Amino acid sequence: VIATSAEIVAEDFSFAYEFSDQDEVDLVIVLGGDGSILQSARQMGAHQVPVLGINCGHLGFLAALSPEDFLDVWPRVCEGDFRIVDHLMLQVQIVRADAVVAEQLALNEAAVLSGPPFHILDIDYYADGELATQYRCDGLIVATPVGSTAHSLSAGGPIVRRQLQAMILSPISPHTLTYRPVVESADTVVELAVTEPQPTTCILVDGRVLGTLLSGDRVRIQRSPTSFRMLRVPGQNDYRTLREKLGWSGSLNLRR
Amino acid sequence: VIATSAEIVAEDFSFAYEFSDQDEVDLVIVLGGDGSILQSARQMGAHQVPVLGINCGHLGFLAALSPEDFLDVWPRVCEGDFRIVDHLMLQVQIVRADAVVAEQLALNEAAVLSGPPFHILDIDYYADGELATQYRCDGLIVATPVGSTAHSLSAGGPIVRRQLQAMILSPISPHTLTYRPVVESADTVVELAVTEPQPTTCILVDGRVLGTLLSGDRVRIQRSPTSFRMLRVPGQNDYRTLREKLGWSGSLNLRR
Amino acid sequence: VIATSAEIVAEDFSFAYEFSDQDEVDLVIVLGGDGSILQSARQMGAHQVPVLGINCGHLGFLAALSPEDFLDVWPRVCEGDFRIVDHLMLQVQIVRADAVVAEQLALNEAAVLSGPPFHILDIDYYADGELATQYRCDGLIVATPVGSTAHSLSAGGPIVRRQLQAMILSPISPHTLTYRPVVESADTVVELAVTEPQPTTCILVDGRVLGTLLSGDRVRIQRSPTSFRMLRVPGQNDYRTLREKLGWSGSLNLRR
Amino acid sequence: VIATSAEIVAEDFSFAYEFSDQDEVDLVIVLGGDGSILQSARQMGAHQVPVLGINCGHLGFLAALSPEDFLDVWPRVCEGDFRIVDHLMLQVQIVRADAVVAEQLALNEAAVLSGPPFHILDIDYYADGELATQYRCDGLIVATPVGSTAHSLSAGGPIVRRQLQAMILSPISPHTLTYRPVVESADTVVELAVTEPQPTTCILVDGRVLGTLLSGDRVRIQRSPTSFRMLRVPGQNDYRTLREKLGWSGSLNLRR
Repeated sequence: VIATSAEIVAEDFSFAYEFSDQDEVDLVIVLGGDGSILQSARQMGAHQVPVLGINCGHLGFLAALSPEDFLDVWPRVCEGDFRIVDHLMLQVQIVRADAVVAEQLALNEAAVLSGPPFHILDIDYYADGELATQYRCDGLIVATPVGSTAHSLSAGGPIVRRQLQAMILSPISPHTLTYRPVVESADTVVELAVTEPQPTTCILVDGRVLGTLLSGDRVRIQRSPTSFRMLRVPGQNDYRTLREKLGWSGSLNLRR
Repeated sequence: VIATSAEIVAEDFSFAYEFSDQDEVDLVIVLGGDGSILQSARQMGAHQVPVLGINCGHLGFLAALSPEDFLDVWPRVCEGDFRIVDHLMLQVQIVRADAVVAEQLALNEAAVLSGPPFHILDIDYYADGELATQYRCDGLIVATPVGSTAHSLSAGGPIVRRQLQAMILSPISPHTLTYRPVVESADTVVELAVTEPQPTTCILVDGRVLGTLLSGDRVRIQRSPTSFRMLRVPGQNDYRTLREKLGWSGSLNLRR
Repeated sequence: VIATSAEIVAEDFSFAYEFSDQDEVDLVIVLGGDGSILQSARQMGAHQVPVLGINCGHLGFLAALSPEDFLDVWPRVCEGDFRIVDHLMLQVQIVRADAVVAEQLALNEAAVLSGPPFHILDIDYYADGELATQYRCDGLIVATPVGSTAHSLSAGGPIVRRQLQAMILSPISPHTLTYRPVVESADTVVELAVTEPQPTTCILVDGRVLGTLLSGDRVRIQRSPTSFRMLRVPGQNDYRTLREKLGWSGSLNLRR
Repeated sequence: VIATSAEIVAEDFSFAYEFSDQDEVDLVIVLGGDGSILQSARQMGAHQVPVLGINCGHLGFLAALSPEDFLDVWPRVCEGDFRIVDHLMLQVQIVRADAVVAEQLALNEAAVLSGPPFHILDIDYYADGELATQYRCDGLIVATPVGSTAHSLSAGGPIVRRQLQAMILSPISPHTLTYRPVVESADTVVELAVTEPQPTTCILVDGRVLGTLLSGDRVRIQRSPTSFRMLRVPGQNDYRTLREKLGWSGSLNLRR
């Protein structure tokens, strides 16, 4: 039996359904763009149910199916002619005096950013407990492969294929000119500490503020035991999306 | 007669001397790093006096003279064996309902940045009154050639030789992947308007908040009638500074 | 009297007309894309005549007028309702044992590149006779503002407004990670020397090989006394071209 | 029993020892820099023996042990107090008319590059037999994680931690401005076809020409069954190397 919460989402845009382990939901159909899917992932939290995303506007990286394609695909979905693919999610925690004071799952990325007075951030990066390096920058993004085509990409990060178990660390406006994005193993426990946080130094998860960082806080980012699960329907293709979303089909070539 | 405010700067770091047109100051000697020179430029405002910068720590882009070099050079400075070079400064204004509500001279750059809730910024860029493009980004930097080795460089901007009459527009984390830094003529009147400013959307001048931007505000940036004037002493050389400050001498080469 | 060589170009694509000082040509209409205009500039050499470019396919950076626009604009062109704009060209010379052994005008760029065996290039860059820096890279591009949207852009160079009197030095795959593109004054005499040229180390001008470089050769690049002259017709606008050619109108935005 | 071929390498720099399956070699000690280790990997081919690299000059990414460190570490190596770590190598083949006409193992990268007449390369990239995208560029690098700090890094690629099973595709001077480096799964069969090869279009493996590409050729790149095996000694640390080799310790910070 396939139960869809699509109507709920579509009706009220309130993302109000409360998922739990008692659910008998097999599939969530998300009508909307990538933002709606991101929102659904947030809403499901530790109770991830497979998602099928239908884009109602432009093609998305996640919502790769148009409404027309959906009608073609749906009968085969009901017959089970599809594959559920697990995507890495990150558990993001603010650790203060050895206690976790806030946490959230990330499908795209966690980002340390700062507002007024906009001083340079010094961010110590610990990999598995050992100081790896100190970033001097305007911000630092730790992204999943799914998130590699979102904020991290605009900060200069690479596109990472989704099946890779990896995290991408992309500094924003790095003041050390030799910094380059780093692709880390997803098994690494990443900890970030801002040396002198400003009143507005925050950790964002998927574009939303999780909390403000105080001096001594550590942001701990590690592989979540929960995956984001997405239905892979025939015809979907990551490179096709890149060609269409990023103009890789060649429409924006330079002359020479 | 050469009067130095060096002692004042050195003694109290308060940058308290008030410059005016009545000054009979011929030269300001700044002891400190690039930050101190930036501070001096701010302090002098519309009353710029030629500056000689002595770095008391690391070599700077502006404070290119070591204390030892200074002792060698000083007698020749007194004999007038030097040249004063004018450097472009920018007049940065917040225009609200046709009135200028705040303004400041920039030696390095003006930057539109935002804090919580850290939404993407949509910044309309008008060149001489005509809409040139809309940036979607985390921030936008408009730098002078002197400032091209500061914040703009870390955001991906080019190094622009100081004698060029130019402004550099460098977006931070641009969401349109085809954006590249633009080097504009210094005679262009640049106006920036943030479509939906957030409570913390600010315009910074040389790293300090000039003001918060409201909806409808325009930031106007244009060539200042006043230049920053710096003594060019023998031995100073922009490329030498690049080699030493940025390791262009080749110490950080990759193998292949 | 307006004489057009458009038919010649259109008929045979042979670019065979020989321009001279005795010409009574007031205007050259180039039908084709940016490549045809580049070819015309090469063909005219030291005898540059104002050019009006009509793109027969996609919008170009130089051929910014569509055939339809042309019909609208033509009567006003005949009435002299237009402005001729000078664009910087570079004189590129191979200097061997104090003699110029080859030379060519560049409208877009000069580039030092190498083929087999594809070793890293060490290129000494002299600015006005003084060693500025040594590039270790796969190649080095010296572009005009017009050429800033061509090869230089793909190598990471900035977009430079055409009225600026500047050259852009953009290294290809620089092995020193702190290298950034440099925007030089157009009055600088740029000289490049490849320390150990390989058999295929060449200097290209506007995409064509000018010559092979031997050990001891210098490539001298400086402002040409001749400018490329282009008719500026109403409606033309550099930023519009950027919006349309590079998708700056926002069609390729990332989600977040 | 530990047999070293170090003396051979050190004596003649000829890399002449022929490795075979009959070898009773447990460890190869390479004296030299990263280049020597690269050379050793090439020399061992399908018969990889664990390597311990001692840098005789600067710190290397691979030769991370100084001679002094070696003396400290050696007794513990003899006691077996070390771990052998496998590193991904790529099998690079030129396929012509369904036959493999040349092949080589890559420890760093394979690169498609071109010489005179230096036209833009159109490179079709097939991922597991399916056309993924077409690159328009000056070259294309497919690197291992070990090679991510070599040529790929200078072309804008990310740093990829060595334990990841990944390949990095980094285009050189891409003419489509939205191209970004892609981190692929190491299990992908990568095939590259140059649409119109020039006489000098080559495939390089670890910096050496493997062969010239003809029209119709495919370059096939896939995970090698053989790994490069390196001794991991206490004190070695990838991030330390980044800090020291790339100046990540902060010595090249910009002011602001």
